[in-house]
Amino acid sequence: MTRERIYLFDTTLRDGAQTTGVDFSLDDKRAVAGLLDKLGIDYVEGGYPGANPLDTAFFSEKRTKNAKFTAFGMTKRAGRSASNDPGVAALLDAQADAICFVAKAWDYHVHVALEISLEDNLLGIRESVAAAREKGREVAVDCEHFFDGYKANPEYALACAKAAFDAGARWVVLCDTNGGTLPHEVAAIVAEVGKLVPGSHIGIHAHDDCGCAVANSLAAVEAGARQIQGTLNGLGERCGNANLVTLIGALKLKDGYAKRFDLGVTDETLSQLTHVSRQVDEILNRQPNRHAPFVGASAFATKAGIHASAVLKDPRTYEHVEPDVVGNVRKVLVSDQGGQSNVLSELKRLGFHLEKGDLRVSRLLDEVKRKESEGFAFEGADASFFVLVKRMLGEVPAFFEVERFSVNVERRYNAVGELVTASEAIVKVRVGDEVLISAAEGNGPVNALDVALRKDLGKYQDLIQDLELIDYKVRIYQGGSDAVTRVLIEFEDGAGDRWTTIGVSPNIIDASFQALTDSMIYKLLKSGASH
Amino acid sequence: MTRERIYLFDTTLRDGAQTTGVDFSLDDKRAVAGLLDKLGIDYVEGGYPGANPLDTAFFSEKRTKNAKFTAFGMTKRAGRSASNDPGVAALLDAQADAICFVAKAWDYHVHVALEISLEDNLLGIRESVAAAREKGREVAVDCEHFFDGYKANPEYALACAKAAFDAGARWVVLCDTNGGTLPHEVAAIVAEVGKLVPGSHIGIHAHDDCGCAVANSLAAVEAGARQIQGTLNGLGERCGNANLVTLIGALKLKDGYAKRFDLGVTDETLSQLTHVSRQVDEILNRQPNRHAPFVGASAFATKAGIHASAVLKDPRTYEHVEPDVVGNVRKVLVSDQGGQSNVLSELKRLGFHLEKGDLRVSRLLDEVKRKESEGFAFEGADASFFVLVKRMLGEVPAFFEVERFSVNVERRYNAVGELVTASEAIVKVRVGDEVLISAAEGNGPVNALDVALRKDLGKYQDLIQDLELIDYKVRIYQGGSDAVTRVLIEFEDGAGDRWTTIGVSPNIIDASFQALTDSMIYKLLKSGASH
Repeated sequence: MTRERIYLFDTTLRDGAQTTGVDFSLDDKRAVAGLLDKLGIDYVEGGYPGANPLDTAFFSEKRTKNAKFTAFGMTKRAGRSASNDPGVAALLDAQADAICFVAKAWDYHVHVALEISLEDNLLGIRESVAAAREKGREVAVDCEHFFDGYKANPEYALACAKAAFDAGARWVVLCDTNGGTLPHEVAAIVAEVGKLVPGSHIGIHAHDDCGCAVANSLAAVEAGARQIQGTLNGLGERCGNANLVTLIGALKLKDGYAKRFDLGVTDETLSQLTHVSRQVDEILNRQPNRHAPFVGASAFATKAGIHASAVLKDPRTYEHVEPDVVGNVRKVLVSDQGGQSNVLSELKRLGFHLEKGDLRVSRLLDEVKRKESEGFAFEGADASFFVLVKRMLGEVPAFFEVERFSVNVERRYNAVGELVTASEAIVKVRVGDEVLISAAEGNGPVNALDVALRKDLGKYQDLIQDLELIDYKVRIYQGGSDAVTRVLIEFEDGAGDRWTTIGVSPNIIDASFQALTDSMIYKLLKSGASH
Repeated sequence: MTRERIYLFDTTLRDGAQTTGVDFSLDDKRAVAGLLDKLGIDYVEGGYPGANPLDTAFFSEKRTKNAKFTAFGMTKRAGRSASNDPGVAALLDAQADAICFVAKAWDYHVHVALEISLEDNLLGIRESVAAAREKGREVAVDCEHFFDGYKANPEYALACAKAAFDAGARWVVLCDTNGGTLPHEVAAIVAEVGKLVPGSHIGIHAHDDCGCAVANSLAAVEAGARQIQGTLNGLGERCGNANLVTLIGALKLKDGYAKRFDLGVTDETLSQLTHVSRQVDEILNRQPNRHAPFVGASAFATKAGIHASAVLKDPRTYEHVEPDVVGNVRKVLVSDQGGQSNVLSELKRLGFHLEKGDLRVSRLLDEVKRKESEGFAFEGADASFFVLVKRMLGEVPAFFEVERFSVNVERRYNAVGELVTASEAIVKVRVGDEVLISAAEGNGPVNALDVALRKDLGKYQDLIQDLELIDYKVRIYQGGSDAVTRVLIEFEDGAGDRWTTIGVSPNIIDASFQALTDSMIYKLLKSGASH
């Protein structure tokens, strides 16, 4: 059986940006594009240049090394030529390898939303595709509402698909924009399109409004489609787009697909899947879905009881795939067998050389579990984990000790009757034999505390001077009966290195203090400072 | 075409109890059973009597009026007769209309987990079913790991299914216990079973480890199955069971099913679907999934401006079903990407009656865009948007004015040499002619400020007393050149209403202060308090 290639097209940064409460900054977009590129995704749809300044800026340069950097936009408006259409112009200006045009394929929309003739819509598709081909871009056409359009007027929907293909589109993407199509309907309709457009040029873009986005994508593949559009973690408006993370797991690991298809994702990059999924949630400060297929914290977790011993005897009996191939962990909540492998793997990744069976590994595991039960989560806070390990190995010198801090925020009327808010901090720190007191103002209490902590650290001052607080995230964590605050702080130093630390406390300033001091210790350790 | 009946079998209280972090109290079980009963679910599997005291107590009386109250347990152990098996005895003692036995159907499990012969396993199935039939109970048999069992040894799996049917089981339920079976495989295998057991007696029990539980359930129905097992909101261990809420929506509202099948759920009880889903999350103190199909807060929420005007023109163009039939709401989100249509629709939803063309609408839109450029995001902060509109309409009385606040966090050694952190706040607020000063301690600065702000609000004290801070989120937002902190706070009042407010400032305490006071004003407005 000849193996075929399935192409993955990620629209996290475009369709995913429609998710309620999600906003990508430019930095966020760069970071996500990088993750997708490394994972082996074929197309990264970065946004909609021309629609807003951030997306236009994002397309000022190509943001991927291997993936095809793709710009999204609308087909030309009626009554203008493609070369005179500002939307198309913005797309052609973009530093993109590929352009994805969204086009109407439902006659009702052409009449009511665009208010043009059916023929003019086809013309718009043809000329937009041609204009992009002429400029050497690869072209995809998203046939919007394709399935509803096909049900209403199959000839017209097919005509739109064919127009796109005949004009030179590499991909004709059938979009279930409302998310209301069911798998058996997708299978039948994609097969019909396959009579006019080769399956190798057909893509599927599903939404999860009936809980069938993944199944619809697979049904389309069964019917011949070879491109799947989706988002990481199923981001997207309403119920989200097809979850590419789930699809990657299924396509790489389920026999029915793994034996037939290749992806851009390799077995090696597959092991990053869990990490990529969690990083995206980190970047967006979203609570990860612990029940997510393949990568969720609970995806391989069995509660105490009859299953646990059977799983440990032979995991095949209770697991459909092995967790570590996707970078996840088996959690059997009665024992710590899965835990040790995970810790060892993390230690290796951070440059420690401890062997399985070393007593310190199980002590470290106990400490990690203890801190996790308090609300710590070291996933995403490498630097704090590093410091924890170093402490446990007895390799952290007594650099400094904060004997006291006091942080105050006051809002009052100033001398000219304006309400102003002022923040100040006082820190008393012992460095060796010296006791140093520093005071600082800041634009907020954490900033004031950060400045005060690093104002005068005696002999270590030079080393921690160039730290800069880059990002700050807070979540309430419902550990046991009480809620605690979990603070993650990202730092950058003069050399451009970045790292993240974590602090946990019912008190947000206390939690911030932990993260701040962890970061200072991390930097001192990294610099090779000695006592 | 003759219509057929599909039976819904809910296992929220049994399989759903395996969810990480979920524990049902007896009261919780009563409440959920009542919700399921009223919704029109056919079978309510209440738990595993004999396995633990709570479940045994739950089966001391029948807990449903219309639904068949069902007890779960294992088939008899080998070497005993059914009448001498304590597990079976506990099931027969239970005040249940039906009994659901879980039986092995994978030869590997029979050998390795049970360590008995294949024939003894079949005997166990036959005798357990017979014992329950003899006592007048309706019987279902969950064939555990059926699909993996079928792939490994089809004859044996089919033999187990047939044994159950021949012994008098009303339902032979094919379970995808590991969740690793794909829809096309489910379809093929269910069809094979259908050659030995009538489809009218076949059930499907799917798990979501490949994101296909709903699709697998529908595929089984297409292949002839007529019972679907699942849980509310897709609860369950690992990635959860098939989501019955999603399935109810699809079966009642999608043509392909609505035209062929009847459920116990009527059009009238269907309108409770959203309420039932949210009540279950309330009972379990779980964060609702805002992206859940049909019932999620965002299931019918549109962000983009271009879509918004089309949706309002004709919802059919962008919605696959109407939200109100399931008790949900259309939300056109106010955001940077929106326009006048968005704002007007939001105003209507919140109870304001402004017309297109009203100058106040464009002033409001300008104000929203201005605040959004400062870092505000009203999308997830309805209550702050409400207050903003009221202010713009001049309808916010001068309830109170905070003239000053001071918040302090101090960490120092206490009298016994321990490092402790203490937070306190002082608030000076004017209410009418009164000036009130309050001080409070808290487990953190925001808590202290919240307590102090609501300690003494003069004549309004009763109205804001019962507010509770439920969730707290912080992000650094890179607005222009400067970073600001965006704080979202979710509150709940004594009536159980929940809302979210937002505050933005470089100073996290200041931002929290804005969100806190917005919430107090919202509550006062909601209560109809006047100046």
